[in-house]
Amino acid sequence: MSEDNKNLEFKRHTLAHLLAAAVLVDYPHANLTLGPAIDNGFYYDIDFSAGDTPGDDDLKKIQKHMKKMLGQWTSFEHEEVSADQAKEIFKDNPFKLELIEEITEKGEAITLYTAGAGTKAEFTDLCRGGHSDNPAEEIAADAFKLDKIAGAYWRGDEKNPMITRIYGLAFDTKEELEAYEKQREEARARDHRKLGKELGLFTFSDTVGKGLPLYTPKGSTIRRELERFIVDEEIKRGYLHVYTPDIAKLDLYEKSGHYPHYKDSMYAPIDVDDEKFMLRPMTCPHHFELYSSEPHSYKELPMRIGELAKLYRYEQSGELTGLIRVRSFCLADAHIICANEEQAISEVGEALDLIEYVASVFGLEMGKDYHYRLSLGDRNDSEKYYKNDEAWDKGEALLRELLQNRDCEFVEAEGEGAFYGPKVDVQMVNVNGKEDTAFTVQYDFCMPDRFDLTYIDSDGQEKRALVVHRSSIGAIERIMGFLIERFGGNFPLWLSPTQVAVIAVADAHKEYAAKVYEELKAVGIRTEYDDSKDSMGKKIRNAKKNKLPYFVVIGDKEVAEKTVTVESRDGESKEMTLNSFANHLLTEIDNKDIK
Amino acid sequence: MSEDNKNLEFKRHTLAHLLAAAVLVDYPHANLTLGPAIDNGFYYDIDFSAGDTPGDDDLKKIQKHMKKMLGQWTSFEHEEVSADQAKEIFKDNPFKLELIEEITEKGEAITLYTAGAGTKAEFTDLCRGGHSDNPAEEIAADAFKLDKIAGAYWRGDEKNPMITRIYGLAFDTKEELEAYEKQREEARARDHRKLGKELGLFTFSDTVGKGLPLYTPKGSTIRRELERFIVDEEIKRGYLHVYTPDIAKLDLYEKSGHYPHYKDSMYAPIDVDDEKFMLRPMTCPHHFELYSSEPHSYKELPMRIGELAKLYRYEQSGELTGLIRVRSFCLADAHIICANEEQAISEVGEALDLIEYVASVFGLEMGKDYHYRLSLGDRNDSEKYYKNDEAWDKGEALLRELLQNRDCEFVEAEGEGAFYGPKVDVQMVNVNGKEDTAFTVQYDFCMPDRFDLTYIDSDGQEKRALVVHRSSIGAIERIMGFLIERFGGNFPLWLSPTQVAVIAVADAHKEYAAKVYEELKAVGIRTEYDDSKDSMGKKIRNAKKNKLPYFVVIGDKEVAEKTVTVESRDGESKEMTLNSFANHLLTEIDNKDIK
Repeated sequence: MSEDNKNLEFKRHTLAHLLAAAVLVDYPHANLTLGPAIDNGFYYDIDFSAGDTPGDDDLKKIQKHMKKMLGQWTSFEHEEVSADQAKEIFKDNPFKLELIEEITEKGEAITLYTAGAGTKAEFTDLCRGGHSDNPAEEIAADAFKLDKIAGAYWRGDEKNPMITRIYGLAFDTKEELEAYEKQREEARARDHRKLGKELGLFTFSDTVGKGLPLYTPKGSTIRRELERFIVDEEIKRGYLHVYTPDIAKLDLYEKSGHYPHYKDSMYAPIDVDDEKFMLRPMTCPHHFELYSSEPHSYKELPMRIGELAKLYRYEQSGELTGLIRVRSFCLADAHIICANEEQAISEVGEALDLIEYVASVFGLEMGKDYHYRLSLGDRNDSEKYYKNDEAWDKGEALLRELLQNRDCEFVEAEGEGAFYGPKVDVQMVNVNGKEDTAFTVQYDFCMPDRFDLTYIDSDGQEKRALVVHRSSIGAIERIMGFLIERFGGNFPLWLSPTQVAVIAVADAHKEYAAKVYEELKAVGIRTEYDDSKDSMGKKIRNAKKNKLPYFVVIGDKEVAEKTVTVESRDGESKEMTLNSFANHLLTEIDNKDIK
Repeated sequence: MSEDNKNLEFKRHTLAHLLAAAVLVDYPHANLTLGPAIDNGFYYDIDFSAGDTPGDDDLKKIQKHMKKMLGQWTSFEHEEVSADQAKEIFKDNPFKLELIEEITEKGEAITLYTAGAGTKAEFTDLCRGGHSDNPAEEIAADAFKLDKIAGAYWRGDEKNPMITRIYGLAFDTKEELEAYEKQREEARARDHRKLGKELGLFTFSDTVGKGLPLYTPKGSTIRRELERFIVDEEIKRGYLHVYTPDIAKLDLYEKSGHYPHYKDSMYAPIDVDDEKFMLRPMTCPHHFELYSSEPHSYKELPMRIGELAKLYRYEQSGELTGLIRVRSFCLADAHIICANEEQAISEVGEALDLIEYVASVFGLEMGKDYHYRLSLGDRNDSEKYYKNDEAWDKGEALLRELLQNRDCEFVEAEGEGAFYGPKVDVQMVNVNGKEDTAFTVQYDFCMPDRFDLTYIDSDGQEKRALVVHRSSIGAIERIMGFLIERFGGNFPLWLSPTQVAVIAVADAHKEYAAKVYEELKAVGIRTEYDDSKDSMGKKIRNAKKNKLPYFVVIGDKEVAEKTVTVESRDGESKEMTLNSFANHLLTEIDNKDIK
C-alpha cells in the first residue's frame, strides 16, 4: 500500500472513531461494537437496542457533532491495559467484552485509543490502532460526510442479533468526495435494473421465478434487433445458423464430459419414461451431434455452426442481478469445426475480427472499454485440464502469436483456460468500472476426441478435426443489460423501441399529424402518435422522459408547408420535408449510428 | 354404410379368407388366427412358429395361389356347429380354441364358413360372416394384391406372442387399385421425414433424445424465414411481440389451473433450491403475468401480446412422428387482452383474417385445404368445462354469428371447446388426406378471473378483461413438416435454403461465374457456387436433385455478352442480364410467389 493510500485509510479509520464519539452525544445508551475503514469511507456498527435508534434524518445532526468535535481532536494516543482493566471499562457492553475475550485468547495486547484527550470531545475506544496522529490538522472537514444507515448482523453472522451500521464517505479533499458522489449518482441513474423499470423494458414475476426475466414489448424490440443483427452479420461472414433442442438426455453431457465437471451449474434431471433429460448448460455437444449426423469433406471446413442458443445454468438466488446474472440466457454461440491448427488459429482471428466489429457498432473501444486476456492451462493440474501437454503448448503458442500480430491489447492469465484448451477472453468494463469476462473464444483439442469429430481429407483419409468455441456478442441478456447502462437508456436509433413520436399542437393539426404517423410507419419506422388529451408540453415531456431519439411537432407552419419540425433527444431542432426526414431516419438506422 | 361400401367390405373380408387358404398351400403348419377387412384392403394374422415363415419375397407366390383358387370359389356357405364340434375341428390351433371359448362364454352361435365347397380350393374357417356370395364372379382378380408382411401381437396385446400379419390391398376395380397405389407412392415420396433426410433439412440423435429435432443449416434457413415472416406480419398488424421464460415455477400453472388438468402432458418438475420449476406447456400464464406487471388503461386494449414460444409437452415415444409430433415445439402464440365481448369477437375475426392471409401465402385454399370448426362446450360437464353458463351461451352465439357473417366454411362440434371457453379450430388436411386440428383461436372468460386481468375503463372503474388465445401459423415444427410435404421439397423461392446455384461450363468461365456468385450474394440471394471438379452434367443433376429453384450456367456466350442463362426448377430456360435476373429474384422473394 502506498503512503498516500495508508494515510487515507488512517483518516477513514479515525473518522469511524469520530462517528462513534458523535453518536454517543445524543444516544448515550448505544453500545459501540466495531468500526473499520472501507473502500470510499468508513462505517461503525452500533447496538441501539437499549433506547432510540437514529434514522436517516438524524445523520445530519450526528455529522454536525463530528465536525464540531474534530477541531478538538489534535491528538490520538494509546495505552496498553490488562484484560481485567478493559473488562471493567466496558463492563456494560457485551460486544466489547466478547472482543476482549477473543484478543485475550489469542494472547494479543489489549490497547485503548483516546482522541482529544483532556478536551470536551475526549473519546476512548478499544482498538488495534491505525489512525491520524493529529486528526484536526490532517482531516478536511468538508472531505467526509455520513452516507446511510443499514442493518447488519453482529460480526456478519445471521445467527447473531441485527445491529445498526452507519456508513460515511471520506476522501482527502472535498473535490474527490464530490467527484465520487457524482460518479456514483451517474452509475445509479444508469443501473440497468432502474432504467429497465423506468423505461418499461423488462420485469420479473415471483410466480414465474427468480432470475427469469420477462421482456416487455419495448425490451423485446431491443432484443429482437440485437438478435437479428448478430445472426445476419454472422451469416454474412459465412456462419451456418442452426436450431438445436434446449433439452437433451443426460447421456449427451456424460459423453461430452461436461457432466461431472459442470454438475453444480446444471439443473436437476427431468425423468421422461426411463430416461433423464437435462436443461442444456451449453451448446457444444448439440452442435457436435449435428455435425456428426453425416460425413464431411475437408472442402466443407472450416464449418462455422452458429446458434442463438438458450442455456440454463444454476445461480444462487442471492447472486441473481437483473439481466446480468440470470438462470436462463440466450447465447450467440458458435462452434467452428476446423481441419488443422492453422485453420483453427485463423478462425480465432476471424472471430476476434467479428467481435471488434460488433464492439465498434456499440461504440466500444479496444483498450478503453475492453481488452483481451489469453487464458492458459496448467500442465500440473490434470484434474482441471485435459491432459495433452503437446497440444496445450502448441495451442497457447499459436494463440499468443496471433494476439501479438494483431493490433490489440491483451494480458495473459495462468490457470484460467477451459478444461479442453486455452482461450481468449473478452474482458469488458461495466458502468461501475468493474472488469468482467464478457465471453470467450476457445481453442479446443479435447472435444473432437470425445465426439470423434472427423473429416475426409484431400488424401481420402479420415482425420481428426479441431474446434473453436466462440461468442460474438455474449448472452443477449447480458449485452442488453450492459447496453442499457452504457447508453443510459439513450439507445441508438436502430435499437430504440420507439423511434419517433408524432405530436400535434392542436386539433386542427391532427389530420396531417396522423398522415405523418402513417407514412413513417409505412416505411418501417417504429412510430408513436400521441393523440391523448394531454397538453403539448406534457406530450413533449413524455417523449423526453422515454428518451425517444426524435419527436416531431406538427403545427400551423408544418401543415401549411407540408413539413415536419424534428426535435432530437440531444436538443437539436430542424424543419424538413417528411421525405427527407424519413430518409434521414432510414440512413441512421441502416448505419447503426451512435449519436 | 352404403350398399357399395358394404359390398367392398364383404369382398375384402372374402379376400382375407382367400389369403388364408392360399397360405396353407405352401405352409400347411401355419395356425390361422383372425383376418378382417380394413381400410384399403384386408389382412390375416397367422402363427408360423411350427415351421417356415414367409417373407416379402414369398408374397407373389401366395398371391398366385389366391388368384388360382379364386376361380373355384363360386360359393360361400355357412353352418352352425356346437362348441365341441368346433373344438374338435380346430383341436391343433390354440388361437382358434381361445376364440371358440370366448364365443361360447358370450353365448353366441359358432359358425363355420366354407368357400369353394367340393372343389380343390375348398376352405373352411371359423367366422362370423360377411362375405361375397360368389367370389369368383364378384371379385376382380386384378383389383387386389398382397402388400406387405409385418409382425403383430396376438390380439394386439404386447404380452401375447408375436405372430405374422400379411396385408393385402383390394378395391372394386384395377383402376381404383392403381390410383390408390399411385397416391400412396406420391404421399410417401413427399413424406417430410423422407424429404427432410434427402434434402438434409433436419435430423435426430439418439444421444440428444427422441422427438427433439436438430435443424441443419438448410432446415434452419427455412425455419428462420418462417419465424421472421410471421413475427413481422404480426407486428405490422399491431401485435406486441415479447420474450418470456420457457420455464416457470409450478405455482404459475397451479394459479392458471392448468396443472391438475394438464399434468399428464407436462414433464416432471425440476427442483431448484426449495422450489419446483416446470418446462412450460403453454404461454398463457406467462403473458398474463407480464400484462399484470403494471396497470393498463382501456386505451391500450385490445393488447395483442405475441411470442414465438418454445413449449414442452409429453408425447409417448411411439407417438413421435418427424416434425409433426415432437416433445418440444415453437408455437407462434398470442394472447389478446380485450375490454369486452364485442372487442374479443372482433379480435377473433382479425385473427381469422391473419390466418387466411398466411394460408394464402402458402397457397392453401379455404374449403379445400382447410376449414374452420366451431368447438363448443358442454353445460352438463362442469369437470371438463369452466362453469359459467351465461358466458358460454354468449361466447358461442357471438362466435357462431361471426363465422356465419364471414365468407368461410365451418362445421360445429359439441364438447370440443377449451376448458375456459369455446373456440374456432383450424382444421387442415395433410398430404395423406387426413384432417387434423392445426391450431385454434380461443375465446376465454375464465383465465381473466384466475389471473385477475383488469383494466381501467373510461369511467375510471377497474374492469375485468377478456382474452383471445390464438395462433397464426401453429407450431413452427408442424408447419415446416406440413410445407415440406405440401411443396414436395419444391419450396417457394423465399423459403428455399439455397435459391440459386452458379455453374461454370469450363475453367475459362470461372472468373465471370465467381463474379455472378458474388453479386447475387451481395444483394442477399442465397447463392451457391459449385466449383468442384464434377462435370457440368453432374452439377446440374445435383442442383435438380436438391430442388433448387434456379441455377445459372455460365459459358462462352454468357461471358461474352455479360448475361446469365437461367434454368428454373420447372424446366424453363432464359438468357438475361445479371441485373434483371437479380431484380426478378428479389421481386419473387418479396412477393413470396408460389410457382
